[in-house]
Amino acid sequence: MAELRKDPVIGRWVIVSTDRGRRPSDFVLEETPRVLDSKSCPFCEGNEAITPPEILSYRKCETCSNSPGWWIRVVPNKFPALRIEGELNKRGKGIYDLMNGIGAHEVIIETPQHVDDIFSLEQKAVEDVIWVYRERMIDLMKDVRFEYVLIFKNKGRDAGASLDHPHSQLIATPIVPKRVEEEIEGAKKYFDFKQRCVFCDVKNQEVESKERLLWQDENFVSFCPFASRFPYEMSILPKNHSSDFRKINEAEVKSLAWMLKKCINSLNEIIPGVPYNYIIHTSPSNKSNLKYYHWHLEVMPRLTSIAGFEWGTGFYINYVPPEEAAKHLKQEEKINP
Amino acid sequence: MAELRKDPVIGRWVIVSTDRGRRPSDFVLEETPRVLDSKSCPFCEGNEAITPPEILSYRKCETCSNSPGWWIRVVPNKFPALRIEGELNKRGKGIYDLMNGIGAHEVIIETPQHVDDIFSLEQKAVEDVIWVYRERMIDLMKDVRFEYVLIFKNKGRDAGASLDHPHSQLIATPIVPKRVEEEIEGAKKYFDFKQRCVFCDVKNQEVESKERLLWQDENFVSFCPFASRFPYEMSILPKNHSSDFRKINEAEVKSLAWMLKKCINSLNEIIPGVPYNYIIHTSPSNKSNLKYYHWHLEVMPRLTSIAGFEWGTGFYINYVPPEEAAKHLKQEEKINP
Repeated sequence: MAELRKDPVIGRWVIVSTDRGRRPSDFVLEETPRVLDSKSCPFCEGNEAITPPEILSYRKCETCSNSPGWWIRVVPNKFPALRIEGELNKRGKGIYDLMNGIGAHEVIIETPQHVDDIFSLEQKAVEDVIWVYRERMIDLMKDVRFEYVLIFKNKGRDAGASLDHPHSQLIATPIVPKRVEEEIEGAKKYFDFKQRCVFCDVKNQEVESKERLLWQDENFVSFCPFASRFPYEMSILPKNHSSDFRKINEAEVKSLAWMLKKCINSLNEIIPGVPYNYIIHTSPSNKSNLKYYHWHLEVMPRLTSIAGFEWGTGFYINYVPPEEAAKHLKQEEKINP
Repeated sequence: MAELRKDPVIGRWVIVSTDRGRRPSDFVLEETPRVLDSKSCPFCEGNEAITPPEILSYRKCETCSNSPGWWIRVVPNKFPALRIEGELNKRGKGIYDLMNGIGAHEVIIETPQHVDDIFSLEQKAVEDVIWVYRERMIDLMKDVRFEYVLIFKNKGRDAGASLDHPHSQLIATPIVPKRVEEEIEGAKKYFDFKQRCVFCDVKNQEVESKERLLWQDENFVSFCPFASRFPYEMSILPKNHSSDFRKINEAEVKSLAWMLKKCINSLNEIIPGVPYNYIIHTSPSNKSNLKYYHWHLEVMPRLTSIAGFEWGTGFYINYVPPEEAAKHLKQEEKINP
């Protein structure tokens, strides 16, 4: 059983896994090749028996669960950071606070094909992944133990992916994560002062100034954030104010799929094989219709390493100004030197 | 000129460097070998002309600055994240806040020898590095533009080091970094409630319980923190309450050098060649004698990658419980499986 432990000074929670306690010799410092073909890949069609039983799948009529015939499959993570069964049992230990590592950790297998990325596939494939995100989030947020559900994607080894087959993940947590809490508090302060959503204001300024603007349609807008932490960082925001990803509608799903394809493919075009993470930030389980919060998606290319200064300060150093990054991504200027 | 830009939602500052604007083709995804011998290494004795002119050196009598004869040398970073000349010029741009990238970015070359790490050298070498840290911090904190000085070390490529020759760095910033601000606020809240320093309470509980305790003498104590983010993370705290690293005395410098050697060498013994960062957290320039804050040193081994979940939440997943990590580091139990 993992434990959730709280830092007594800054209140950051850490999942300390005791199940998978590793020995020093487990940390191999050399790169280990992970050449998995579709015979041994647990996420490929035909290998359903290698994963834990599926939670949800989009599959052809008259095919059985945990057998071929699916195009998206959701399974529990084989090595979950948090476990679904049990009670939280919040408690103290001297000055420390902890609780049991209760939560959910699922893998969304985005396609049966062992391709590089789904964004090279047709738009419908991406739309269905978004529908699955929504469905799993709605389901898990009904569990009163879970205050938050984070959907994220790690692509490439340098971004933390341990398997190459296209997949995303979700983790449901019994506390609202610190980063989300900070966004909500920051946005609330702004709203209290201005009576406007800070994300809407950012979106309006970006659309108007065009300096960092990437793409837009009637439902979504993307841009490189003014204070980008990483080179080629991208933000995707719904144009209509909404704090809750669960409320995304059909037209918006289509737009978001188009936008994700546009953003990720453009990034891949200028930096082939780029490792990246993306995350969806939405309001906590029991909070909907917040006037001051706005759900969004953050794409973080992993091109530079995070060193002592960043860990020590929370400051970031970015050597590609977002104004230039936007130009490169839109290929508005020659990108080869 | 770099710019300091503030995230409008959570208030995080980012250094956006415009001087070193990179092109997409600058991000090489393959590992590039960095085989530098002492002929081409800019930090080796005899190559003083390759670095910018020195700010400070500990050197033999009758040798000239920027020539051989030194045992520690401080030089400006050749590619500084922030520049020392100029005014801050705090300003707004629509809803955004920014200022000029004014600060200092220095490199502390810890030894003239092209060795792997100074912690394998005699204790005196480490003591002198600590004295240099203190001297530079005192000097830079006199500059009214700088609210904070962060001292840090990146060891190994995976920890962000671009050169192998033993060195540390410091960055002086015109704002107190978010991570430090959070610690100060958290510690102040605790003090307001309990009238005690939270770091002193942590130290007392760790010494008493021994579960995560590493080493101690009359001046310093080290342990694996209760809510360790990383496998084999270590905290080093002065035993006597002090918020300000600048006030370290001679006996404490000796103790800290001994403790650093002990911690880093033990880590290297169980995981040879381990990449790591360490940082010193102290009170801001214009705040000394804080009852509620306690300076400390954090050692962060870089053995696992930070992925989407960590970026998205501020949560960390640690697969080595600190209680086990402490046993491994003290070699109290057989560490090979």
